[in-house]
Amino acid sequence: MPKENKNGKKPRWVHPMSQIPEPWILLNYYFSSFKGKLLKGLIHNVNSPIQNISFLIEFALQDLKTIKTSDKLLEYCTARFSTLKKQLVKLTEVLRPIELFERLVYEDRPLTALELSETVRELLLYDLYCKHHVKVNLDVASKASLLFPNSGTLIPVVCQLLDNALTALKTIKADKLTIHITETEIHIIDNGCGFDISNAAQLFEPWISNWPLELLPEEEQSHLGLGLYWTKKIMEAYNGSVAISRNQDTTISTIYLPRSEK
Amino acid sequence: MPKENKNGKKPRWVHPMSQIPEPWILLNYYFSSFKGKLLKGLIHNVNSPIQNISFLIEFALQDLKTIKTSDKLLEYCTARFSTLKKQLVKLTEVLRPIELFERLVYEDRPLTALELSETVRELLLYDLYCKHHVKVNLDVASKASLLFPNSGTLIPVVCQLLDNALTALKTIKADKLTIHITETEIHIIDNGCGFDISNAAQLFEPWISNWPLELLPEEEQSHLGLGLYWTKKIMEAYNGSVAISRNQDTTISTIYLPRSEK
Repeated sequence: MPKENKNGKKPRWVHPMSQIPEPWILLNYYFSSFKGKLLKGLIHNVNSPIQNISFLIEFALQDLKTIKTSDKLLEYCTARFSTLKKQLVKLTEVLRPIELFERLVYEDRPLTALELSETVRELLLYDLYCKHHVKVNLDVASKASLLFPNSGTLIPVVCQLLDNALTALKTIKADKLTIHITETEIHIIDNGCGFDISNAAQLFEPWISNWPLELLPEEEQSHLGLGLYWTKKIMEAYNGSVAISRNQDTTISTIYLPRSEK
Repeated sequence: MPKENKNGKKPRWVHPMSQIPEPWILLNYYFSSFKGKLLKGLIHNVNSPIQNISFLIEFALQDLKTIKTSDKLLEYCTARFSTLKKQLVKLTEVLRPIELFERLVYEDRPLTALELSETVRELLLYDLYCKHHVKVNLDVASKASLLFPNSGTLIPVVCQLLDNALTALKTIKADKLTIHITETEIHIIDNGCGFDISNAAQLFEPWISNWPLELLPEEEQSHLGLGLYWTKKIMEAYNGSVAISRNQDTTISTIYLPRSEK
């Protein structure tokens, strides 16, 4: 949602003072980057059912040559096609969440709290660390509540805070992630590496990052120090906000949702 | 490949003067974003073979009930499993390039010119505009030449310039993309929207972008104005460079590769 090019002149822009990109540009950018990180998990998740389907077909082609009676053949083929169908269902189940996710963002419509929590739950399965090591607890106060802003903004904001939580979890191999959704707030709570509370005020400043540079060397690094900055700016544009706090060994990111625009 | 955290203190960094992020951080960031943009095409490309497999299984389960003789049953099932196998091959063909692409970057090894060109050719099929509207011409001078720097750097740099070319093509619905690879240079040539040649020197400055703000409103926008900046900085770190020029209605992006480090 970039602002209009008012002068109508030659396409060109220079970032204004302080050289901080537009929050909306950052949203698109960070969100695209978040999706890029899901690719590895997506490929991993589809490979298992595809391999099973491949084996089932190969073995069937071999077995057909050895089965002599009509009854046995019918029985065998019915069973084999049924098993194939089950494996195909597994494959489509792996792909469905990412399709739904893309569509929800594209449609840019109000989400119910349940839709958001289901989307998040399934999306987290594409993060292989999360899938295998993290106990995810989703807690929705009122499932039918319509959330604002719309999906095209809210999902990227949630994804950015999830991305932070996942990074914090991986850093110290921690294992708990809770997402709590009410009509007016979304809390993302992790027991990951956390941050120095004395830096808390600075975290929303542009270019400030608490992530260690040596973090997760085998993973993609993408810490511009603008993640919390843009999420907060964008939520503020909707009369909402974003905050981050510590409580014992947990980090709590909170999205304050505005009231509906009705 | 972030630089070492030399002070060994609390994990924290602030961007140095001018608030321009490290080129290596930008590389990871832009590359992750490039991959995120492939998701839509990837999902689109896998859906067709999955749907065919689904139909084949469903119809088979129906048909089995009506086939009476043993010979016909054997013939039918053999044919059906063979067709299923072909569709599965199509599905794996769609997924193989993205797996290879991820692995090549991860392995961070010297690529042959042929490997790079094949990777690019298949990758472009995940960009739906390119797949359906653009005539791609790949031209490799010496297929066995080993290119430097290694895949973990070279592929993201090539992807960034490809991303620029694809954006330029989509902007004016243009249709020609040529990639020419020699031992010492990679040229990416498109007949897209181009740029004002009087701005050419500025394009490699950080925060400068020639893309129109109103560009492709339905697509993800991510123009920080740092793309050419980091590709050039990184290539320069390897004694290479990046340049961009216009020739009639084409834009030519050139990666100057350094000599091998042997």
